[in-house]
Amino acid sequence: MKVTERTKVKRLPARGAYDRETIYPILDEAFICHVGFVVDGQPYVIPTAFARIGDDLYIHGSSASRMLRSISKGIDICVTVTLVDGLVLARSAFHHSINYRSVVVLGKATLVEDADEKEKALEAFTEHLIPGRWPEIRWPNELELKATSVLKLPIEEASAKVRTGDPKDDDEDYVMNVWAGVIPLTTAAGTPVPDSLLNDGITIPEHVTNYRHK
Amino acid sequence: MKVTERTKVKRLPARGAYDRETIYPILDEAFICHVGFVVDGQPYVIPTAFARIGDDLYIHGSSASRMLRSISKGIDICVTVTLVDGLVLARSAFHHSINYRSVVVLGKATLVEDADEKEKALEAFTEHLIPGRWPEIRWPNELELKATSVLKLPIEEASAKVRTGDPKDDDEDYVMNVWAGVIPLTTAAGTPVPDSLLNDGITIPEHVTNYRHK
Repeated sequence: MKVTERTKVKRLPARGAYDRETIYPILDEAFICHVGFVVDGQPYVIPTAFARIGDDLYIHGSSASRMLRSISKGIDICVTVTLVDGLVLARSAFHHSINYRSVVVLGKATLVEDADEKEKALEAFTEHLIPGRWPEIRWPNELELKATSVLKLPIEEASAKVRTGDPKDDDEDYVMNVWAGVIPLTTAAGTPVPDSLLNDGITIPEHVTNYRHK
Repeated sequence: MKVTERTKVKRLPARGAYDRETIYPILDEAFICHVGFVVDGQPYVIPTAFARIGDDLYIHGSSASRMLRSISKGIDICVTVTLVDGLVLARSAFHHSINYRSVVVLGKATLVEDADEKEKALEAFTEHLIPGRWPEIRWPNELELKATSVLKLPIEEASAKVRTGDPKDDDEDYVMNVWAGVIPLTTAAGTPVPDSLLNDGITIPEHVTNYRHK
Protein backbone atom coordinates (compact mmCIF):
# COMPACT_ATOMS: atom_id res chain seq x y z
CA MET A 1 0.00 0.00 0.00
CA LYS A 2 1.45 3.40 -0.89
CA VAL A 3 1.85 5.66 2.12
CA THR A 4 0.84 9.21 1.38
CA GLU A 5 0.94 12.38 3.45
CA ARG A 6 -2.85 12.04 3.68
CA THR A 7 -2.95 8.52 5.11
CA LYS A 8 0.27 8.49 7.12
CA VAL A 9 -0.48 8.03 10.81
CA LYS A 10 1.17 11.04 12.41
CA ARG A 11 -0.06 10.81 15.99
CA LEU A 12 1.47 7.72 17.63
CA PRO A 13 2.99 6.46 14.36
CA ALA A 14 3.80 3.07 15.93
CA ARG A 15 0.06 2.35 15.76
CA GLY A 16 -0.03 2.84 12.00
CA ALA A 17 0.05 0.05 9.42
CA TYR A 18 -0.14 0.13 5.65
CA ASP A 19 -0.11 -3.52 4.59
CA ARG A 20 -3.09 -5.35 3.16
CA GLU A 21 -2.53 -8.20 5.66
CA THR A 22 -3.46 -5.77 8.46
CA ILE A 23 -6.08 -3.75 6.62
CA TYR A 24 -8.23 -6.46 5.02
CA PRO A 25 -9.14 -8.49 8.14
CA ILE A 26 -10.35 -5.26 9.79
CA LEU A 27 -12.54 -4.47 6.80
CA ASP A 28 -13.85 -8.02 6.66
CA GLU A 29 -14.79 -8.15 10.34
CA ALA A 30 -16.87 -4.96 10.39
CA PHE A 31 -20.53 -4.74 9.37
CA ILE A 32 -20.62 -1.08 8.58
CA CYS A 33 -18.33 1.65 7.37
CA HIS A 34 -18.67 5.40 7.76
CA VAL A 35 -18.54 7.23 4.43
CA GLY A 36 -17.37 10.84 4.43
CA PHE A 37 -18.16 13.13 1.52
CA VAL A 38 -18.55 16.86 0.96
CA VAL A 39 -21.57 18.70 -0.43
CA ASP A 40 -21.38 22.51 -0.71
CA GLY A 41 -18.39 22.54 1.64
CA GLN A 42 -20.20 20.62 4.38
CA PRO A 43 -18.82 17.20 5.27
CA TYR A 44 -21.31 14.40 5.86
CA VAL A 45 -20.53 11.09 7.54
CA ILE A 46 -23.05 8.34 6.86
CA PRO A 47 -22.96 4.75 8.16
CA THR A 48 -23.62 2.11 5.55
CA ALA A 49 -23.08 -1.57 4.79
CA PHE A 50 -20.18 -2.54 2.57
CA ALA A 51 -18.16 -5.45 1.25
CA ARG A 52 -14.66 -6.09 -0.02
CA ILE A 53 -13.84 -8.08 -3.13
CA GLY A 54 -10.11 -8.38 -3.70
CA ASP A 55 -8.58 -4.90 -3.68
CA ASP A 56 -11.88 -3.05 -4.02
CA LEU A 57 -14.37 -1.84 -1.45
CA TYR A 58 -18.01 -1.72 -2.50
CA ILE A 59 -20.86 0.28 -1.04
CA HIS A 60 -24.44 0.37 -2.22
CA GLY A 61 -27.74 2.06 -1.64
CA SER A 62 -30.84 3.39 -3.25
CA SER A 63 -30.15 5.06 -6.60
CA ALA A 64 -32.20 7.94 -5.18
CA SER A 65 -30.07 8.56 -2.09
CA ARG A 66 -28.22 11.83 -1.75
CA MET A 67 -25.08 10.04 -0.64
CA LEU A 68 -25.01 7.68 -3.59
CA ARG A 69 -25.84 10.41 -6.10
CA SER A 70 -23.15 12.72 -4.68
CA ILE A 71 -20.47 10.09 -4.51
CA SER A 72 -21.13 8.61 -7.92
CA LYS A 73 -20.05 11.94 -9.45
CA GLY A 74 -16.49 10.88 -8.66
CA ILE A 75 -15.83 13.21 -5.74
CA ASP A 76 -13.19 12.58 -3.09
CA ILE A 77 -14.46 10.39 -0.29
CA CYS A 78 -13.14 8.82 2.89
CA VAL A 79 -14.35 5.43 4.08
CA THR A 80 -13.57 4.57 7.69
CA VAL A 81 -14.12 1.27 9.47
CA THR A 82 -13.68 0.93 13.23
CA LEU A 83 -13.78 -2.05 15.57
CA VAL A 84 -13.81 -1.41 19.33
CA ASP A 85 -11.96 -4.16 21.23
CA GLY A 86 -11.76 -2.94 24.80
CA LEU A 87 -11.77 -0.24 27.42
CA VAL A 88 -8.27 0.60 28.62
CA LEU A 89 -8.37 1.58 32.28
CA ALA A 90 -5.20 3.33 33.39
CA ARG A 91 -4.17 4.71 36.77
CA SER A 92 -4.36 8.28 35.48
CA ALA A 93 -7.30 9.83 33.63
CA PHE A 94 -4.89 10.98 30.94
CA HIS A 95 -3.90 7.46 29.90
CA HIS A 96 -7.40 6.01 29.70
CA SER A 97 -7.94 4.77 26.19
CA ILE A 98 -9.81 2.38 23.93
CA ASN A 99 -8.36 -0.68 22.22
CA TYR A 100 -9.48 -0.49 18.63
CA ARG A 101 -8.65 -1.34 15.05
CA SER A 102 -9.55 1.17 12.37
CA VAL A 103 -8.98 1.59 8.66
CA VAL A 104 -9.21 4.75 6.57
CA VAL A 105 -9.50 4.49 2.77
CA LEU A 106 -9.28 7.62 0.63
CA GLY A 107 -10.17 7.88 -3.03
CA LYS A 108 -12.87 8.40 -5.61
CA ALA A 109 -15.64 5.87 -6.06
CA THR A 110 -17.05 4.92 -9.43
CA LEU A 111 -20.50 3.63 -10.30
CA VAL A 112 -20.49 -0.06 -11.19
CA GLU A 113 -22.21 -0.36 -14.57
CA ASP A 114 -21.27 -3.91 -15.50
CA ALA A 115 -24.18 -6.23 -14.67
CA ASP A 116 -22.02 -9.19 -13.65
CA GLU A 117 -19.83 -7.09 -11.38
CA LYS A 118 -22.89 -5.49 -9.82
CA GLU A 119 -24.45 -8.88 -9.04
CA LYS A 120 -21.18 -10.16 -7.61
CA ALA A 121 -21.05 -7.11 -5.35
CA LEU A 122 -24.63 -7.66 -4.18
CA GLU A 123 -23.75 -11.28 -3.38
CA ALA A 124 -20.72 -10.04 -1.44
CA PHE A 125 -22.86 -7.63 0.64
CA THR A 126 -25.11 -10.49 1.77
CA GLU A 127 -22.28 -12.95 2.34
CA HIS A 128 -20.36 -10.29 4.26
CA LEU A 129 -23.29 -9.95 6.67
CA ILE A 130 -23.86 -13.67 7.04
CA PRO A 131 -21.92 -16.32 5.16
CA GLY A 132 -24.01 -19.04 3.55
CA ARG A 133 -27.12 -16.89 3.09
CA TRP A 134 -26.90 -16.07 -0.62
CA PRO A 135 -27.77 -19.55 -2.03
CA GLU A 136 -31.00 -19.68 0.01
CA ILE A 137 -32.66 -16.37 -0.82
CA ARG A 138 -34.35 -14.75 -3.78
CA TRP A 139 -31.78 -12.89 -5.84
CA PRO A 140 -32.32 -9.35 -7.11
CA ASN A 141 -34.64 -8.96 -10.09
CA GLU A 142 -34.36 -6.37 -12.86
CA LEU A 143 -36.30 -3.70 -11.01
CA GLU A 144 -34.30 -4.14 -7.83
CA LEU A 145 -31.03 -4.00 -9.75
CA LYS A 146 -32.15 -0.71 -11.30
CA ALA A 147 -33.17 0.71 -7.95
CA THR A 148 -29.78 -0.11 -6.43
CA SER A 149 -26.57 1.79 -7.07
CA VAL A 150 -23.30 0.02 -6.38
CA LEU A 151 -20.11 2.03 -6.05
CA LYS A 152 -16.55 0.76 -6.11
CA LEU A 153 -13.63 2.33 -4.28
CA PRO A 154 -10.17 0.93 -5.05
CA ILE A 155 -8.22 0.23 -1.86
CA GLU A 156 -5.06 2.04 -2.94
CA GLU A 157 -4.59 4.88 -0.48
CA ALA A 158 -5.35 3.41 2.92
CA SER A 159 -4.00 3.01 6.41
CA ALA A 160 -4.85 1.08 9.54
CA LYS A 161 -4.47 2.24 13.12
CA VAL A 162 -4.46 -0.30 15.91
CA ARG A 163 -4.18 -0.06 19.70
CA THR A 164 -3.86 -3.27 21.70
CA GLY A 165 -2.83 -4.38 25.14
CA ASP A 166 -2.30 -2.90 28.58
CA PRO A 167 -2.60 0.72 29.65
CA LYS A 168 0.63 2.72 29.50
CA ASP A 169 0.89 4.79 32.64
CA ASP A 170 3.51 7.29 33.70
CA ASP A 171 6.32 5.60 35.64
CA GLU A 172 5.48 7.34 38.90
CA ASP A 173 1.84 6.25 38.78
CA TYR A 174 2.54 2.51 38.96
CA VAL A 175 2.84 2.76 42.76
CA MET A 176 -0.79 3.89 43.02
CA ASN A 177 -3.34 1.67 44.70
CA VAL A 178 -5.61 1.71 41.62
CA TRP A 179 -6.77 -1.29 39.62
CA ALA A 180 -5.70 -0.99 35.99
CA GLY A 181 -6.30 -3.24 33.03
CA VAL A 182 -8.55 -3.83 30.07
CA ILE A 183 -12.25 -4.71 29.82
CA PRO A 184 -12.52 -6.65 26.54
CA LEU A 185 -15.48 -5.79 24.32
CA THR A 186 -16.87 -8.01 21.60
CA THR A 187 -19.88 -8.05 19.32
CA ALA A 188 -22.14 -10.85 20.52
CA ALA A 189 -24.90 -12.46 18.48
CA GLY A 190 -28.06 -13.32 20.44
CA THR A 191 -30.72 -15.94 19.79
CA PRO A 192 -32.22 -15.43 16.33
CA VAL A 193 -35.72 -13.91 16.43
CA PRO A 194 -38.06 -15.34 13.75
CA ASP A 195 -40.02 -12.88 11.61
CA SER A 196 -43.51 -12.54 13.12
CA LEU A 197 -44.85 -13.39 9.66
CA LEU A 198 -42.73 -16.53 9.25
CA ASN A 199 -44.74 -19.43 7.82
CA ASP A 200 -45.15 -22.54 9.96
CA GLY A 201 -42.80 -25.42 9.36
CA ILE A 202 -39.77 -23.43 8.23
CA THR A 203 -36.75 -24.65 10.16
CA ILE A 204 -33.93 -22.35 11.07
CA PRO A 205 -31.00 -23.03 8.71
CA GLU A 206 -27.45 -23.83 9.74
CA HIS A 207 -26.02 -20.56 8.45
CA VAL A 208 -28.24 -18.83 11.04
CA THR A 209 -27.86 -21.22 13.99
CA ASN A 210 -24.10 -21.40 13.44
CA TYR A 211 -23.76 -17.65 13.04
CA ARG A 212 -20.93 -16.20 15.02
CA HIS A 213 -19.53 -12.76 14.61
CA LYS A 214 -15.88 -13.09 13.56
CA MET B 1 -34.30 20.27 17.46
CA LYS B 2 -34.56 22.37 14.31
CA VAL B 3 -34.89 20.27 11.16
CA THR B 4 -32.81 21.61 8.31
CA GLU B 5 -32.45 20.56 4.70
CA ARG B 6 -29.04 19.23 5.70
CA THR B 7 -30.20 16.95 8.50
CA LYS B 8 -33.64 15.97 7.24
CA VAL B 9 -33.81 12.22 6.63
CA LYS B 10 -34.84 11.98 2.98
CA ARG B 11 -34.46 8.27 2.30
CA LEU B 12 -37.08 6.36 4.32
CA PRO B 13 -38.21 9.48 6.23
CA ALA B 14 -40.22 7.36 8.69
CA ARG B 15 -36.87 6.30 10.17
CA GLY B 16 -35.90 9.88 10.95
CA ALA B 17 -36.21 11.56 14.35
CA TYR B 18 -35.26 15.02 15.53
CA ASP B 19 -36.08 15.04 19.24
CA ARG B 20 -33.50 15.06 22.00
CA GLU B 21 -35.31 12.15 23.70
CA THR B 22 -34.33 9.94 20.76
CA ILE B 23 -30.93 11.45 19.99
CA TYR B 24 -29.33 11.62 23.45
CA PRO B 25 -29.66 7.95 24.50
CA ILE B 26 -27.97 6.94 21.23
CA LEU B 27 -25.09 9.31 21.91
CA ASP B 28 -24.82 8.14 25.50
CA GLU B 29 -24.70 4.45 24.63
CA ALA B 30 -21.87 4.67 22.08
CA PHE B 31 -18.16 4.67 22.94
CA ILE B 32 -16.92 6.34 19.82
CA CYS B 33 -18.08 8.80 17.24
CA HIS B 34 -16.80 9.34 13.70
CA VAL B 35 -15.76 12.93 13.06
CA GLY B 36 -15.87 14.20 9.49
CA PHE B 37 -13.91 17.29 8.47
CA VAL B 38 -12.42 18.69 5.29
CA VAL B 39 -8.78 19.63 4.64
CA ASP B 40 -7.87 20.94 1.18
CA GLY B 41 -11.15 19.62 -0.22
CA GLN B 42 -10.51 16.07 1.02
CA PRO B 43 -12.94 14.71 3.63
CA TYR B 44 -11.47 12.74 6.53
CA VAL B 45 -13.45 10.54 8.89
CA ILE B 46 -11.71 9.74 12.15
CA PRO B 47 -13.03 7.62 15.04
CA THR B 48 -12.61 9.15 18.47
CA ALA B 49 -13.98 9.05 22.00
CA PHE B 50 -16.53 11.64 23.03
CA ALA B 51 -18.97 12.64 25.74
CA ARG B 52 -22.18 14.60 26.02
CA ILE B 53 -22.87 17.20 28.71
CA GLY B 54 -26.34 18.67 28.42
CA ASP B 55 -26.82 19.98 24.90
CA ASP B 56 -23.14 19.87 23.96
CA LEU B 57 -21.01 17.13 22.51
CA TYR B 58 -17.33 17.13 23.47
CA ILE B 59 -14.39 15.52 21.73
CA HIS B 60 -10.75 15.65 22.76
CA GLY B 61 -7.31 14.66 21.67
CA SER B 62 -3.70 15.66 21.56
CA SER B 63 -3.22 19.37 20.97
CA ALA B 64 -0.79 18.25 18.25
CA SER B 65 -3.25 16.15 16.25
CA ARG B 66 -4.17 17.20 12.74
CA MET B 67 -7.82 16.55 13.41
CA LEU B 68 -7.94 18.70 16.54
CA ARG B 69 -5.91 21.51 14.99
CA SER B 70 -8.08 21.54 11.87
CA ILE B 71 -11.37 21.41 13.70
CA SER B 72 -10.47 24.00 16.30
CA LYS B 73 -10.24 26.59 13.50
CA GLY B 74 -14.03 26.57 13.50
CA ILE B 75 -14.62 24.67 10.27
CA ASP B 76 -17.82 22.77 9.48
CA ILE B 77 -17.78 19.25 10.85
CA CYS B 78 -20.09 16.27 11.00
CA VAL B 79 -20.11 13.94 14.00
CA THR B 80 -21.82 10.60 13.46
CA VAL B 81 -22.56 7.93 16.05
CA THR B 82 -23.83 4.48 15.05
CA LEU B 83 -25.02 1.50 17.08
CA VAL B 84 -25.57 -1.81 15.29
CA ASP B 85 -28.44 -3.78 16.83
CA GLY B 86 -29.03 -6.70 14.53
CA LEU B 87 -28.79 -8.41 11.18
CA VAL B 88 -32.09 -8.34 9.32
CA LEU B 89 -32.46 -11.49 7.23
CA ALA B 90 -35.18 -11.18 4.61
CA ARG B 91 -36.45 -13.66 2.02
CA SER B 92 -35.03 -11.57 -0.80
CA ALA B 93 -31.47 -10.28 -1.06
CA PHE B 94 -32.87 -6.80 -1.73
CA HIS B 95 -34.56 -6.52 1.67
CA HIS B 96 -31.64 -7.67 3.78
CA SER B 97 -30.78 -4.90 6.17
CA ILE B 98 -29.22 -3.95 9.49
CA ASN B 99 -31.07 -2.80 12.57
CA TYR B 100 -29.24 0.27 13.79
CA ARG B 101 -29.54 3.58 15.57
CA SER B 102 -27.48 6.47 14.29
CA VAL B 103 -27.14 10.18 14.98
CA VAL B 104 -25.64 12.89 12.79
CA VAL B 105 -24.68 16.24 14.32
CA LEU B 106 -23.59 19.11 12.08
CA GLY B 107 -21.96 22.31 13.19
CA LYS B 108 -18.77 24.09 14.08
CA ALA B 109 -16.75 23.09 17.11
CA THR B 110 -15.01 25.55 19.37
CA LEU B 111 -11.95 25.08 21.55
CA VAL B 112 -12.79 24.93 25.24
CA GLU B 113 -10.57 27.49 26.95
CA ASP B 114 -12.24 27.69 30.36
CA ALA B 115 -10.31 25.50 32.82
CA ASP B 116 -13.37 24.37 34.78
CA GLU B 117 -15.31 23.43 31.67
CA LYS B 118 -12.29 21.56 30.33
CA GLU B 119 -11.92 19.52 33.51
CA LYS B 120 -15.64 18.75 33.56
CA ALA B 121 -15.37 17.50 29.99
CA LEU B 122 -12.39 15.30 30.86
CA GLU B 123 -14.37 13.84 33.75
CA ALA B 124 -17.27 13.22 31.36
CA PHE B 125 -15.01 11.34 28.90
CA THR B 126 -13.91 8.93 31.64
CA GLU B 127 -17.37 8.51 33.15
CA HIS B 128 -18.83 7.97 29.68
CA LEU B 129 -16.46 5.02 29.19
CA ILE B 130 -17.01 3.56 32.63
CA PRO B 131 -19.20 5.13 35.29
CA GLY B 132 -17.65 5.32 38.75
CA ARG B 133 -14.05 5.47 37.55
CA TRP B 134 -13.27 9.18 37.95
CA PRO B 135 -13.12 9.32 41.78
CA GLU B 136 -10.54 6.51 41.91
CA ILE B 137 -7.92 7.69 39.44
CA ARG B 138 -5.28 10.39 39.23
CA TRP B 139 -6.77 13.50 37.68
CA PRO B 140 -5.04 15.47 34.92
CA ASN B 141 -2.14 17.68 35.97
CA GLU B 142 -1.14 21.00 34.43
CA LEU B 143 1.05 19.46 31.76
CA GLU B 144 -1.59 16.95 30.74
CA LEU B 145 -4.25 19.65 30.56
CA LYS B 146 -1.98 21.65 28.25
CA ALA B 147 -1.32 18.64 26.05
CA THR B 148 -5.03 17.96 25.63
CA SER B 149 -7.38 19.93 23.44
CA VAL B 150 -11.08 19.73 24.19
CA LEU B 151 -13.60 20.82 21.59
CA LYS B 152 -17.28 21.53 22.05
CA LEU B 153 -19.97 21.05 19.41
CA PRO B 154 -23.46 22.34 20.28
CA ILE B 155 -26.12 19.74 19.49
CA GLU B 156 -28.37 22.08 17.53
CA GLU B 157 -28.54 20.70 14.02
CA ALA B 158 -28.91 16.96 14.43
CA SER B 159 -30.99 14.00 13.40
CA ALA B 160 -31.34 10.36 14.34
CA LYS B 161 -32.12 7.48 12.02
CA VAL B 162 -33.37 4.22 13.47
CA ARG B 163 -34.33 0.86 11.98
CA THR B 164 -35.90 -1.77 14.23
CA GLY B 165 -37.89 -4.95 13.94
CA ASP B 166 -38.65 -7.58 11.34
CA PRO B 167 -37.60 -7.68 7.71
CA LYS B 168 -40.06 -6.14 5.26
CA ASP B 169 -40.35 -8.43 2.28
CA ASP B 170 -42.35 -8.03 -0.90
CA ASP B 171 -45.84 -9.51 -0.53
CA GLU B 172 -45.24 -12.29 -3.03
CA ASP B 173 -42.07 -13.46 -1.25
CA TYR B 174 -43.80 -14.42 2.02
CA VAL B 175 -44.77 -17.79 0.49
CA MET B 176 -41.11 -18.72 0.10
CA ASN B 177 -39.66 -21.55 2.13
CA VAL B 178 -36.90 -19.32 3.54
CA TRP B 179 -36.22 -18.58 7.20
CA ALA B 180 -36.43 -14.85 7.87
CA GLY B 181 -35.89 -12.88 11.03
CA VAL B 182 -33.34 -10.92 13.00
CA ILE B 183 -30.06 -11.94 14.64
CA PRO B 184 -29.67 -9.50 17.54
CA LEU B 185 -26.20 -8.03 18.07
CA THR B 186 -24.95 -6.48 21.27
CA THR B 187 -21.68 -5.22 22.65
CA ALA B 188 -20.57 -7.69 25.31
CA ALA B 189 -18.01 -6.99 28.03
CA GLY B 190 -15.67 -9.89 28.81
CA THR B 191 -13.77 -10.72 31.98
CA PRO B 192 -11.51 -7.80 32.95
CA VAL B 193 -7.82 -8.46 32.21
CA PRO B 194 -5.49 -7.01 34.86
CA ASP B 195 -2.54 -4.91 33.68
CA SER B 196 0.53 -7.17 33.55
CA LEU B 197 2.27 -4.57 35.74
CA LEU B 198 -0.50 -4.44 38.36
CA ASN B 199 0.88 -4.43 41.90
CA ASP B 200 -0.02 -7.34 44.17
CA GLY B 201 -2.89 -6.88 46.56
CA ILE B 202 -4.98 -4.49 44.49
CA THR B 203 -8.53 -5.77 44.39
CA ILE B 204 -10.75 -5.23 41.39
CA PRO B 205 -13.21 -2.42 42.20
CA GLU B 206 -16.99 -2.59 41.88
CA HIS B 207 -17.17 -0.15 39.00
CA VAL B 208 -15.12 -2.70 37.01
CA THR B 209 -16.74 -5.96 38.17
CA ASN B 210 -20.20 -4.46 37.76
CA TYR B 211 -19.41 -3.01 34.36
CA ARG B 212 -22.08 -3.68 31.81
CA HIS B 213 -22.36 -2.01 28.47
CA LYS B 214 -25.66 -0.12 28.37
